[in-house]
Amino acid sequence: MEEKFNIVVGQSGGPTTVINASLYGVIRAAFENSDKIGKVYGMINGIEGFINGKFMDIREEMCDDEIELLKSTPSSYLGSCRYKLPDSMEDAMYRQIFEKFSKMNIKYFIYIGGNDSMDTVSKLAVYARCTNSDVKIIGVPKTIDNDLVLTDHSPGFGSAAKYVATTVRDIVMDASVYDTQSVTIIELMGRHAGWITASSILARKYEGDNPYLIYLPEVAFDVEAFVNKVSELLEHKKNIVVCVSEGIKDKDGTFICEYSGCAGVDTFGHKMLTGCGKYLENVIKEHLGVKVRSVELNVNQRCKAALASRVDVDEAVLAGRYGVNALLEGHTGSMVSFERKAGDEYGIECRLVDCEQVCNQEKIVPREWINEEGTDVLQGFVDYAKPLIVGESEQVVKDGLPVYVYRKEKKV
Amino acid sequence: MEEKFNIVVGQSGGPTTVINASLYGVIRAAFENSDKIGKVYGMINGIEGFINGKFMDIREEMCDDEIELLKSTPSSYLGSCRYKLPDSMEDAMYRQIFEKFSKMNIKYFIYIGGNDSMDTVSKLAVYARCTNSDVKIIGVPKTIDNDLVLTDHSPGFGSAAKYVATTVRDIVMDASVYDTQSVTIIELMGRHAGWITASSILARKYEGDNPYLIYLPEVAFDVEAFVNKVSELLEHKKNIVVCVSEGIKDKDGTFICEYSGCAGVDTFGHKMLTGCGKYLENVIKEHLGVKVRSVELNVNQRCKAALASRVDVDEAVLAGRYGVNALLEGHTGSMVSFERKAGDEYGIECRLVDCEQVCNQEKIVPREWINEEGTDVLQGFVDYAKPLIVGESEQVVKDGLPVYVYRKEKKV
Repeated sequence: MEEKFNIVVGQSGGPTTVINASLYGVIRAAFENSDKIGKVYGMINGIEGFINGKFMDIREEMCDDEIELLKSTPSSYLGSCRYKLPDSMEDAMYRQIFEKFSKMNIKYFIYIGGNDSMDTVSKLAVYARCTNSDVKIIGVPKTIDNDLVLTDHSPGFGSAAKYVATTVRDIVMDASVYDTQSVTIIELMGRHAGWITASSILARKYEGDNPYLIYLPEVAFDVEAFVNKVSELLEHKKNIVVCVSEGIKDKDGTFICEYSGCAGVDTFGHKMLTGCGKYLENVIKEHLGVKVRSVELNVNQRCKAALASRVDVDEAVLAGRYGVNALLEGHTGSMVSFERKAGDEYGIECRLVDCEQVCNQEKIVPREWINEEGTDVLQGFVDYAKPLIVGESEQVVKDGLPVYVYRKEKKV
Repeated sequence: MEEKFNIVVGQSGGPTTVINASLYGVIRAAFENSDKIGKVYGMINGIEGFINGKFMDIREEMCDDEIELLKSTPSSYLGSCRYKLPDSMEDAMYRQIFEKFSKMNIKYFIYIGGNDSMDTVSKLAVYARCTNSDVKIIGVPKTIDNDLVLTDHSPGFGSAAKYVATTVRDIVMDASVYDTQSVTIIELMGRHAGWITASSILARKYEGDNPYLIYLPEVAFDVEAFVNKVSELLEHKKNIVVCVSEGIKDKDGTFICEYSGCAGVDTFGHKMLTGCGKYLENVIKEHLGVKVRSVELNVNQRCKAALASRVDVDEAVLAGRYGVNALLEGHTGSMVSFERKAGDEYGIECRLVDCEQVCNQEKIVPREWINEEGTDVLQGFVDYAKPLIVGESEQVVKDGLPVYVYRKEKKV
């Protein structure tokens, strides 16, 4: 009989709608390989919690129904962290972590996360290599921002895009009921990359529909040009919906949202920092005197499980499964990545890419997918994003509300 | 053969997720009574548009598929208005309106809306009575705020409540991933009545779950007591989610959100008025130094069709149908109202109430459904609201996005 080793899985960085679906994939693949994998440990609050001795035994502590619910539960079931491992491989922390691995008979380490998490994967793999440890380390991509390089897209993005497209479509409907002119500014997530904001183009019901204007952080934002553009549109359109990324910057690199705090202080003398949407609302009110409001979609973009994309959920599961198989095949220091199949019908294939080339990089929306003025997104993006939002996720519903799986309440 | 008369239907006030479902009910009931009802006119932008000659012939201009889509389309298909008819019955406007009725052979007038719309219904009915006109006027209730009196609840509320309960549950999941203490403040709609905010109690997955604190406008809000309460909770809870109504006021009747503008001015010297959530975020940051954020659910509360309550949709259709039948039976000056059946199983019966007793009244959450401190909602409310959010609405989906029906783009 082959010797069995244990696996440990963790979730890291901001939660998404489908990061638990990847956890589900990891758990199922690990269970299916019970001839090679013994215990399946979950790090509580990622590598930071693991270092502090926080983990769970998934086979012992979760029943089958709970594991199934992971597929439709938003947020990070295991808890998350934002923790950067030391740069120096000489740091005692690495030794401690690998001693834990050894003590717990862990040979497989799988980490679901974004850029920073891939930095963790990369560093642990380097340390293993340097110390001839046979612990294998694999990363599974996760980010609503879709900014991971060397993969066609990342699990989490499709559901965020679907939520944004649906919600912007809803808001456009809502914004058009009165016989008076109005401007609605919708602020979307994406500090550096405009993928989420670009998805608002999918909200259009027909060519020339709202949102009329879409601004991404990839192109310098000019407040005056924006006001002129809206003013122009108001000459022949009734209700104008504008989508802006929270991360839009002017040509000097200053975030537009930073201007909101220039003069605004609350009763404590604190800067009242609002988003760029609120700021632009005031700008439009000041210059054009039209009815205007701003809406921030906020955290719903990463946790609205009822609007998860089926494609995204399935791919998230697949990425988790693929990661476990890669570990069993002896791969290490890699991230699971998606390659889009050629041809008209959408499909992906998983492969592995070097984590070191992924971490600390950022994939932005290609300039050729944005119009010259920087006020709209082009067909190239639509072709790219459209297949990622297809299909509804299966929700378990009781009394009209979604049923989620969660760990017991944490005490301080 | 009986003489046929025409019917005109309008939508008024803020849109809801199910106001089009009531329109659907009106249209279907009118079509089914084609022996008595001739043309089915829709006022474009409510009574205001109708006065200005804006209407459509629904049988001519909508196909059957489009009519079916009304059941799942948010916003007001016919457009809306916020328009108050003159107080004096001597005003020439009344004569003009009834001349239009006469010219268009309209005997049935049905208006879907909230408080202000019932004022319109009431006034038109009074005018008809005064002038011996045989035009019959009926109102169909619609409001996410649930503040209409003389009805158990109003169409629109159930879907808003379901959206809020689901979304607060999602945000609670999202807010609990890190191993650090945090406070999340969710600002919900309801300027004067706390029904929507109270619905956040349904988000709790178990007794003692988040949201730990719920503040309605029905009880005076004390900022200091709030800070103390949060501080107390932070002693033994990790992640605290607080739900506040946008309309919370202090004991002097000042809206809490008004304090946000006291010192905050933007670069134009304009007051940066934010909601009370943002203000309380700053208060908590100042006093407790804990990680805190605020989220405003905004217009999604009234337009998130994907999360519409099936019960609400069905009841909205029913109310529309009942209104048409009431007109045919010769009733006038009434609003369709819901009476909850006695017994354990939830059910309603429609009846008619006097519009004059409905308009300009406001139903607030009973004090006995709020705890003494004013920091939570009690079981009475849960029993009341729970049946209203049950069931999922049937959405028509294409390419992963909802398909809606809408009138052609309006030009200025």
